[in-house]
Amino acid sequence: MAPSMHARERALVPAGMTAILPRTARRVRRLEETLVTALSRWGYQEIIPPTFEYLDVLSAGLEPELVEQCYKFADRTTGRILLLRPDVTAQIARIVAMGMVGTGVPLRLCYRTTVFRYEPEHAGREREIFQIGAELIGVDDVMADAEIVALMGDCLRQLGFTSFKISLGHVLFFKSLLARSGLSPGARKRAEHAAARKDLPHLEEILAQERVPRRTARAVLEVPGLYGQEEVLERGRALAGRDALLRETLDRLARVYRLLAETGLRDHLLLDLGELRGFDYYDGVVFDVFAEGLGCELGGGGRYNHLIGRFGRELPSTGFAFDVDRLFRTLDGAENGLPSSHADVLLVAPPQRLPQLFRVAGDLRQAGWRVVQRQQPVRGDGMRRAIEEGRREGVSAVVMVGVPRVSDDEVLLLTGLASRGRGVAKQPGRRRVKIKELPALRLSD
Amino acid sequence: MAPSMHARERALVPAGMTAILPRTARRVRRLEETLVTALSRWGYQEIIPPTFEYLDVLSAGLEPELVEQCYKFADRTTGRILLLRPDVTAQIARIVAMGMVGTGVPLRLCYRTTVFRYEPEHAGREREIFQIGAELIGVDDVMADAEIVALMGDCLRQLGFTSFKISLGHVLFFKSLLARSGLSPGARKRAEHAAARKDLPHLEEILAQERVPRRTARAVLEVPGLYGQEEVLERGRALAGRDALLRETLDRLARVYRLLAETGLRDHLLLDLGELRGFDYYDGVVFDVFAEGLGCELGGGGRYNHLIGRFGRELPSTGFAFDVDRLFRTLDGAENGLPSSHADVLLVAPPQRLPQLFRVAGDLRQAGWRVVQRQQPVRGDGMRRAIEEGRREGVSAVVMVGVPRVSDDEVLLLTGLASRGRGVAKQPGRRRVKIKELPALRLSD
Repeated sequence: MAPSMHARERALVPAGMTAILPRTARRVRRLEETLVTALSRWGYQEIIPPTFEYLDVLSAGLEPELVEQCYKFADRTTGRILLLRPDVTAQIARIVAMGMVGTGVPLRLCYRTTVFRYEPEHAGREREIFQIGAELIGVDDVMADAEIVALMGDCLRQLGFTSFKISLGHVLFFKSLLARSGLSPGARKRAEHAAARKDLPHLEEILAQERVPRRTARAVLEVPGLYGQEEVLERGRALAGRDALLRETLDRLARVYRLLAETGLRDHLLLDLGELRGFDYYDGVVFDVFAEGLGCELGGGGRYNHLIGRFGRELPSTGFAFDVDRLFRTLDGAENGLPSSHADVLLVAPPQRLPQLFRVAGDLRQAGWRVVQRQQPVRGDGMRRAIEEGRREGVSAVVMVGVPRVSDDEVLLLTGLASRGRGVAKQPGRRRVKIKELPALRLSD
Repeated sequence: MAPSMHARERALVPAGMTAILPRTARRVRRLEETLVTALSRWGYQEIIPPTFEYLDVLSAGLEPELVEQCYKFADRTTGRILLLRPDVTAQIARIVAMGMVGTGVPLRLCYRTTVFRYEPEHAGREREIFQIGAELIGVDDVMADAEIVALMGDCLRQLGFTSFKISLGHVLFFKSLLARSGLSPGARKRAEHAAARKDLPHLEEILAQERVPRRTARAVLEVPGLYGQEEVLERGRALAGRDALLRETLDRLARVYRLLAETGLRDHLLLDLGELRGFDYYDGVVFDVFAEGLGCELGGGGRYNHLIGRFGRELPSTGFAFDVDRLFRTLDGAENGLPSSHADVLLVAPPQRLPQLFRVAGDLRQAGWRVVQRQQPVRGDGMRRAIEEGRREGVSAVVMVGVPRVSDDEVLLLTGLASRGRGVAKQPGRRRVKIKELPALRLSD
């Protein structure tokens, strides 16, 4: 299972587990805040699930393949097996089934956290995956299906995405067609996997092995190719014939599609009758979201009407999750009006003026400034050193307290430091400013 | 090690690992934001460390007792042992030593995350502990010692704490006194533990066992009781005699104390010459923070000049961490001007008016409202049901779209729902409002 191990140098950090450094962390947090604000405006309330759970309890909501990918360890206290959560939806299902969030429905819940999975290939931080998601629990209608998709779309717009595609399907369409085809349960599972990968040759092979009648096989093989606009529904209806279940799934999908199209998502929508999502627990309208052009899946979700029931309380639900890392990488490049990650001001004072330095710094922070404070001589080459330090810190101004020939109620303000690295360093401007006037000052060069 | 296990019902959730539910989550996040904003105003930048690390790498920065308390498991990919982080400072030391945050100093870093420890007693969420902390890396002077304490004090004030105590000490005072006493290394360790618990009888026993001279023993036994205001320093100087190292530690402590006292923390400060902190890596000025009256430690920190060196790069540092759960519980009761966790408005419309419902909801959210949307009949007893639903959701108003005898550019606004549970339910107010005037409306009852 592990790649062949040559006598390489031992890594200091587990592959796929790097730290997120300040510049990136700031942008990730900003993205998180934007999403959580959007979710809150739709009435979704955050819940913070624990990082690990008992395997025997949570596995009721996890498919066996996912349990395989989990980090597991024995709990020294109880001897039972713990696992790092591989999926938040299953945790929320458990929490809701236990009645911990009250009994009234609908419930609108959201979360921002990480999930953990062994991944065959590691790059960046693929073992610990940041997710932000939402669940709408306790309603099963077209409106709820549409709300969760519209919410995901609103989140993307709040982040500044203008071109994205939402691929909408209904897992029971293809699954019912397979069930009707007479395939054995094992072959059905394999066929679903092949269809999810749009691997038609393999799908054909499975159908041939189990001697599925030619007409049915043709229908099954056509489905993975049925994506596009409304015409897809027509073709789906032809394949459904008089099968009531198949027609129902198409009707539900059509109504959700039309409602979303009318509410401003028309240009983003794509119908995909072969859409299956990864998780076993989906059993209704499902969707993936892609960044246009990149082919990179940013997230997705769908309806799971029986997952919470596996934990003891039947409640129909739908939800979605974003892969925050992918959102982040897709947005990368565009700074999106982020304030600088650097402090605004470096404030320096000589040792005997430190109490004053703390007071001035406090006043500036009270006014919302970000201030790095530092003890430093102000005589001799103090000014040159302060400017150097200010440039290293990336601040736009330096404020010097206790400079000779500047009165006690004044400071020396040095501005225009930002020229570093843009060719010849401009000489910074300097002027005396009354301390009490400082907080009201604007620091644009 | 585990408590004796009777045939009890198996718990569904690991003890000490409950989920944080919406009402609490909202307040925890608010507290987190307040702290991160305060830290950012002092120029501290956030870093997001990974949840697990290689044991053989991180253990260089962890004391053996802490490694004992860790959650460990084998990495399927490499066969090496992974551990869930029990301490963020050691992780940051590793990250900085590896040069991942650049080579310039000082560095000001902060974090908000959880750490994991086996705990003998479980209540609430004691296995997964929320921490917010900061590290000032690369400077070793009075100013840096004072900055980190002042920063912690500022954080507490931003949270609305008015009465808290910071107990300030220097770990090398007591440690050097012990070293001078001629105790064996093992006995010194035990003596430190006894002193940290202020367990004088046990400390006396250790000193007697190793036949420490009476005069030295008296000095050692006096230290755990040396806490209070400046007079403590005088008594410390008497015990130090002509020992240069002991006098130096007292001088450093005195200078930090005075600077902090002059910058507005005087009423919060307490000197404690027996202050030792829990972690082995501290080797300078250290401090604990307590909520007055409760005796509950909210956090603490101190100087660690050689921890980063254990990972290959010598850099003096100081830092602190808050226990977020304890901050939260201490603040509990005071709502601190938190907005309600509920949405502001419930917006309902009949099935044929759903696209309009989405548009109105979108406009309101754009204006900053938190809107729960819902499909529902508006004729017959629709209004009564909408009011019921609105009360269940805890909103302060219901907006109905598509009500008979209300024109297409208007909605019906129902206010004054909040009377539930306060005795006789007042009849809600109702009026027609132009849709385009809705976002500018104020919803106070």
